[in-house]
Amino acid sequence: MIRVNGQTTDSVSARDRGLAYGDGVFRTLRTQAGQPVWWEDHYAKLAADCAALMLECPDQAELCAEVCQVAGTGQGVVKIVLTRGAGARGYALPPEPATTCIVLASVLPQHAQVFDDVRARWCELKLARQPRLAGIKHLNRLENVLARAEWNDPAIAEGLVCDDSGAVISGVMSNLFWIKDGELFTPDLSQCGVAGVARMRLLRAAARLGMGIHIDRFLPADILAADEVMICNSVMGVRRVARLDDTTWSPAGWTPTLNNALYENLD
Amino acid sequence: MIRVNGQTTDSVSARDRGLAYGDGVFRTLRTQAGQPVWWEDHYAKLAADCAALMLECPDQAELCAEVCQVAGTGQGVVKIVLTRGAGARGYALPPEPATTCIVLASVLPQHAQVFDDVRARWCELKLARQPRLAGIKHLNRLENVLARAEWNDPAIAEGLVCDDSGAVISGVMSNLFWIKDGELFTPDLSQCGVAGVARMRLLRAAARLGMGIHIDRFLPADILAADEVMICNSVMGVRRVARLDDTTWSPAGWTPTLNNALYENLD
Repeated sequence: MIRVNGQTTDSVSARDRGLAYGDGVFRTLRTQAGQPVWWEDHYAKLAADCAALMLECPDQAELCAEVCQVAGTGQGVVKIVLTRGAGARGYALPPEPATTCIVLASVLPQHAQVFDDVRARWCELKLARQPRLAGIKHLNRLENVLARAEWNDPAIAEGLVCDDSGAVISGVMSNLFWIKDGELFTPDLSQCGVAGVARMRLLRAAARLGMGIHIDRFLPADILAADEVMICNSVMGVRRVARLDDTTWSPAGWTPTLNNALYENLD
Repeated sequence: MIRVNGQTTDSVSARDRGLAYGDGVFRTLRTQAGQPVWWEDHYAKLAADCAALMLECPDQAELCAEVCQVAGTGQGVVKIVLTRGAGARGYALPPEPATTCIVLASVLPQHAQVFDDVRARWCELKLARQPRLAGIKHLNRLENVLARAEWNDPAIAEGLVCDDSGAVISGVMSNLFWIKDGELFTPDLSQCGVAGVARMRLLRAAARLGMGIHIDRFLPADILAADEVMICNSVMGVRRVARLDDTTWSPAGWTPTLNNALYENLD
């Protein structure tokens, strides 16, 4: 089911700026029993991303009601897309922009239904550094599309990407973490990448567990020297990377602990 | 009038990858008496951009017929948007992608109806360098939106943007040229920017005129030292920049010559 601006429909205006320029933001979240999971965090991130692009964000309660409208009764995935709406031709912001709000439901993908370790690879594509857009889950995602197009092997769940300076940034569809000597490491995302909600919750969980946390510039060699490598996003939670190209790791026990902590609601 | 995949409609699927990821390319071209202007060049560029993104490009004659369908009888603007079509959630390329082809007509903007000099400004936004996407007129245009949002003064027609290394790249909606000692200069676009059809035609025209041509890495100081500065795109042709922030130039006579040469069809 798809709702666009509060109406059940599967289409949007061909003049929408989301289509013309990728002028908008999105969220992908899990639903359970018809309710969004981690809703407060998702809405807060959506509102922050809207603010960064000078986009009006819908009211929290109204948006939550839309999500519940499309969500099934069991487990599922809902995607929220907010764009700067339909406009005249040209990059200039419309004088009276009206946000287009698209809420669409999908089934929970197979890989999110079982808590398996994953296999990953390094991508050739290097992310460009744009601090004005870094961290935002915006609709300009051609880099992700090109990186994901580098492999077809269904056994490989994720590709890891570096920026053009050689720093490790993330997975194509996930954030990246690793443990070394009991401390948690994750790349700084001030230059590129998406700072996802699962990442934020994992950082919070690690703080609650009293772990040392390092958010910094790291290189591929830092990943290879890790004790345990993990990826996370809001759909699959935290997953252990068991193999990265030819490097393999045995479980060090952190992934189930952190994945469980991710779902705690202590706030 | 808007045509989507050969049907007259003003809507596209809410699941289109053009909307989800900016996964597509576009062209903006002039029409005259119901026919596209510079059609061979526009189609060639569209096909090249499609190839760069592994996107299937519609047949040239069929696409031309679509453009003619939406074009009015006088002068106008037609925009062609090609996307990777509707797909399941996720960045992976659909196993059987079907290009969405959107062709939409607009009126010729006021600024393109009169051959006036323009006023420009420097933008704060710095373009990120992504060689995999450089030159392509793709749908990931948030940088252009943010740069264009830096000013509201209708007297300012264009903003000039540099990349994050400080090199001058282009205007927000145009390519940039200048003349110094009778030779033509324009930025290299191998790292970022859009290599437009008007730019290509202007380079060809300059070669026909026997001018020295320099495509290289340049700095803002190179523009300020120019004898004549010009911007160009397919809608407005070549325009002289009479003022750039506080710098003004008197006409040196090159702009009308090059603009006329742009419209010659010698191929």
